[in-house]
Amino acid sequence: MVKRNQHIAKLQPSYLFVQINEKKKAHLVKKPLAKLISLGIGDTTQPLFKELTESITSYATSLGTKEGYSGYSEWNGPEDLRKSIAKQFYDDKVSPDEIVLSDGSKPDLARIQLLFDHRVSIAVQDPVYPAYVDQAVIAGKTGTFDTEKQQYGNVVYLPCTPENNFFPDLNVPRTDLIFFCSPNNPTGACATRDQLTKLVNHALENNSIIIFDSAYREFIVDPSIPKTIYEIPGAEKCALETSSFSKLVGFTGVRLGWTVCPKKVLYEDGQPVYDDWKRVMGTTFNGASNVALEGGRATLANLDGMRKYIAYYMENAKVLRAVLEKKGLPIYGGDNSPYLWVKIVGKSSWDLFNSLLEQVDIVCTPGSGFGSCGEGFVRFSCFASHESVAEAAKRLETWNP
Amino acid sequence: MVKRNQHIAKLQPSYLFVQINEKKKAHLVKKPLAKLISLGIGDTTQPLFKELTESITSYATSLGTKEGYSGYSEWNGPEDLRKSIAKQFYDDKVSPDEIVLSDGSKPDLARIQLLFDHRVSIAVQDPVYPAYVDQAVIAGKTGTFDTEKQQYGNVVYLPCTPENNFFPDLNVPRTDLIFFCSPNNPTGACATRDQLTKLVNHALENNSIIIFDSAYREFIVDPSIPKTIYEIPGAEKCALETSSFSKLVGFTGVRLGWTVCPKKVLYEDGQPVYDDWKRVMGTTFNGASNVALEGGRATLANLDGMRKYIAYYMENAKVLRAVLEKKGLPIYGGDNSPYLWVKIVGKSSWDLFNSLLEQVDIVCTPGSGFGSCGEGFVRFSCFASHESVAEAAKRLETWNP
Repeated sequence: MVKRNQHIAKLQPSYLFVQINEKKKAHLVKKPLAKLISLGIGDTTQPLFKELTESITSYATSLGTKEGYSGYSEWNGPEDLRKSIAKQFYDDKVSPDEIVLSDGSKPDLARIQLLFDHRVSIAVQDPVYPAYVDQAVIAGKTGTFDTEKQQYGNVVYLPCTPENNFFPDLNVPRTDLIFFCSPNNPTGACATRDQLTKLVNHALENNSIIIFDSAYREFIVDPSIPKTIYEIPGAEKCALETSSFSKLVGFTGVRLGWTVCPKKVLYEDGQPVYDDWKRVMGTTFNGASNVALEGGRATLANLDGMRKYIAYYMENAKVLRAVLEKKGLPIYGGDNSPYLWVKIVGKSSWDLFNSLLEQVDIVCTPGSGFGSCGEGFVRFSCFASHESVAEAAKRLETWNP
Repeated sequence: MVKRNQHIAKLQPSYLFVQINEKKKAHLVKKPLAKLISLGIGDTTQPLFKELTESITSYATSLGTKEGYSGYSEWNGPEDLRKSIAKQFYDDKVSPDEIVLSDGSKPDLARIQLLFDHRVSIAVQDPVYPAYVDQAVIAGKTGTFDTEKQQYGNVVYLPCTPENNFFPDLNVPRTDLIFFCSPNNPTGACATRDQLTKLVNHALENNSIIIFDSAYREFIVDPSIPKTIYEIPGAEKCALETSSFSKLVGFTGVRLGWTVCPKKVLYEDGQPVYDDWKRVMGTTFNGASNVALEGGRATLANLDGMRKYIAYYMENAKVLRAVLEKKGLPIYGGDNSPYLWVKIVGKSSWDLFNSLLEQVDIVCTPGSGFGSCGEGFVRFSCFASHESVAEAAKRLETWNP
């Protein structure tokens, strides 16, 4: 008989979206004519911009021709695209050689788990995008789940709340890896240059490695906020960064992302992590889709198209923020990120979820689904159409939480 | 300081393609005007067929429209495509629910490693596609590399040679997992129904799980040879199968594959492997590219286009086979697979490689790169153009190995 990976048994069932769906269903039984508006999941809804569509269309056509056909790509993706990313997204602070194109951040984060010993300790922000911890659980890097604390063993949870401006107290036990997401999903908070400098110095002092997730980087409009960890001196010695075209140009379905692994990031034995990253990618992955890669080229050649695409969703954030602020609620995020993080003192996340669903037919995401520090919050995603958001804003005026 | 995944250190450097490239370079220094013909790597070279090109082109265009845009797909891919695959590739012997679409077999095989305890034992054919073992090494399932035997510890190597008709003696120590590839890369051998029945019975008797790789299934023209392990009764209780559109329709760059995980395959604790597979895929993957998925639909709707695409390469196999047979060499494969496996008694793989390169400017792959039982063989891939293969055939007539 074959033994299961026992670590998978530690994974808690992901009830969140099941519960949301059950509540939606029950609501529609009671109110069959309700027109639900989803501000829940973080999935893009708007068509690709023109130049991007034209480029992948023409590339798809060329795959049917002798001259345009192409097979396997380089293990790290085409050099021209890596050069453009290094230049336009990193101001050449990282080298094109240190960038690897892939099918997205989530799969890259899973492959990053393979680089490290299963006994390494990890820290995550709380609340947190669940994949970091779940992937660490599968990889055997955590202890079992403590149902009382709602936390896994061998994981240091770093509370990020309004009280600390969503930047964690770093006076905590040292960990080997620190997962950090800015702009943050779900809180919408962005770490300032000063805060990221503290984070990098903390990692350098403690010989930790930061796994920095910048999937929402282009939603940052405030020029003082870093879009990448490599704007901070020293990060090139202690940080990997993963990012994605998913939210930048609507590629959640087309699939394209990248990871930066600087050659100066070393293991305790002095070996460059990069050398193992190359082996891991070459052994477990076969390249992003060439159609998606062409879309990456078109994006880098038309950054204005990308910026307009993002501005569309940020307009939603503005509208939602305005109506929620008018209600006198404390609102976080939504200025440099596509997520609004909203709290009402004395109400649980599910209270808020229920009242939004029952009173105004709006679906959001309960903050408690992202960790214990998310309790009391809900997350509004700004990836709907303008029409839906305008209607949602009208309804929110009448919402009485 | 952060500890490296110590298992990666066991990985042997993959010298094979580095060495091949060095030899090519050195040859071109000596003979700068040589027109090399590559029959080495297994990468497709021919354009996509018409209906397939049209479908992905029109899909790419539609992503720029409100009606045609789509974001994240289901965790297992669209139901209609899974239904078509179940019906047309599996004669409904597996259910659409048991199929998961992905970005290819190699990444799926890497994710399959996550399902099993790191102490499980594994068996592989020898010679063998290197990814099975290399992925197991990274996952910590093997011992260290024995440079004398050229084998990793805790791996049972199953010799597949002309002497046993390329089907292994199964009177070997039991292992938890058995990786098996048919049509085989690199030998080109296909297991018969009788042989696969033995394999399945062996797995059932020993409570082993077979990881069956059918990436070359559609190259089988002999109707008596199974295209899938699920043609064998009992396989639904002991086998996962991974497969790919890469070689079937030239999707090595577009990226689309699938894995079948029957719900009746159980761990020793009686839990279905499928439940963990769903968690692993949901946690570490975000779906195949929607453009590639549309290409999958077009393929299933135009199986004749796929068959003609494959027939093109099989014509190459026929031409190469004919010229090599005329030389009186023992040739294997190439009848139901795109690889020819050729041996000359008394010559090493590198002897053959060198004489092909130096005498006739042809690049092949030395069989010894696939394991110790590959020594003395070379592999010819049939994925070149007709023009290149016609020229290669002319040159091979003059080759004096």
